[in-house]
Amino acid sequence: MRMRKLKWAEPFLATQSVIVRNCDEMAGQWRRLLNQEELHVEIGSGKGDYWIKMSELYPNAGWIGIEKNVNVAAIALKKVENCEHLNRRFIVDDAQAIDSWFAKDEVDVIHLNFSDPWPKKRASKHRLSHASFLKRYEQILKPEGKLIMKTDNVKLFEFSILEFQNNGWLLDEFSVDYRRDEHPEDVITEYEHRFMELNQPIYRAVWHKA
Amino acid sequence: MRMRKLKWAEPFLATQSVIVRNCDEMAGQWRRLLNQEELHVEIGSGKGDYWIKMSELYPNAGWIGIEKNVNVAAIALKKVENCEHLNRRFIVDDAQAIDSWFAKDEVDVIHLNFSDPWPKKRASKHRLSHASFLKRYEQILKPEGKLIMKTDNVKLFEFSILEFQNNGWLLDEFSVDYRRDEHPEDVITEYEHRFMELNQPIYRAVWHKA
Repeated sequence: MRMRKLKWAEPFLATQSVIVRNCDEMAGQWRRLLNQEELHVEIGSGKGDYWIKMSELYPNAGWIGIEKNVNVAAIALKKVENCEHLNRRFIVDDAQAIDSWFAKDEVDVIHLNFSDPWPKKRASKHRLSHASFLKRYEQILKPEGKLIMKTDNVKLFEFSILEFQNNGWLLDEFSVDYRRDEHPEDVITEYEHRFMELNQPIYRAVWHKA
Repeated sequence: MRMRKLKWAEPFLATQSVIVRNCDEMAGQWRRLLNQEELHVEIGSGKGDYWIKMSELYPNAGWIGIEKNVNVAAIALKKVENCEHLNRRFIVDDAQAIDSWFAKDEVDVIHLNFSDPWPKKRASKHRLSHASFLKRYEQILKPEGKLIMKTDNVKLFEFSILEFQNNGWLLDEFSVDYRRDEHPEDVITEYEHRFMELNQPIYRAVWHKA
């Protein structure tokens, strides 16, 4: 998501204790920090609605949001400025380093929601479902861990289905119109709701590493 | 496709030389019969438009259409009643026996176009992408052979993606909106065109057996 610079973003973020800044030192410690058994990580949390609502819907799991864009992250964290953060934390950094922030087998579920499609072929390495990212996810996910992707973007979804397969992941669930059925277990953000109002199907897949 | 009985269907079919009736004896002989190197088989040809148009578009390949419904098959064959059938034949029978009609490794490409979705779970064994069919296709396809599926049906597509994967097939191509791009290499039947006019996406996948 490209957006203009917000002057208040950096000073605001500097004061937010929900942000974890020494991520390299946290590897293997996240469960203890959050005092939770199950650890969910969302990469590309954008304005934070999924991360916030899911951490409220599942108070007995830990939720880490990651967003590299400072301005977008600031908008996300403004929404929880005066909240307790018992079961959630946020990382404002590039997820390329994710395998140094989490220990091997530390994560239960990785979430990719409406990730940037990077439509140009030469930019494909930036897609969060590119092989180079899948190798990192494989490191930090438990053997029985899962990755859940939702997107409205046809090309990103098509790319991802082949990319995961070709890197040895297996589909557990697959939908080309996820919201045709009710899924109260998965919150609908305003961002997602806009696509649904346009009758744009939501694509979703769940994989584990074979 | 359910339809009323046509009184003229059976007498008409009895006179059509495009129909192969002794399929069990033809196993291993189809290339010789059609005098073609490449052998395509469409299962569930319905009213025949794909089989007819593709056999015209690719005159240097052999095209076998299969349709078990006598009335629908009669409509298909009426369309080519007075044509030469150099590179095409038709089978009016249930494809459950397909592995006795074709020899091991005899077929280059199997086509499934807009197959009956058999939506009820207890009827899933009738779907042409059910594991019991995949085992038969595996027998008759060349090692480098492919299976191509197109459908408008969300649930059939979702079922098929998981079913092929779980039976050891690999995706070569995958699209959730095949007709957003031009594909002159693949004819559009009137049946398919109706879905496109309704803005119903066409799902398509190409697999080979790993």
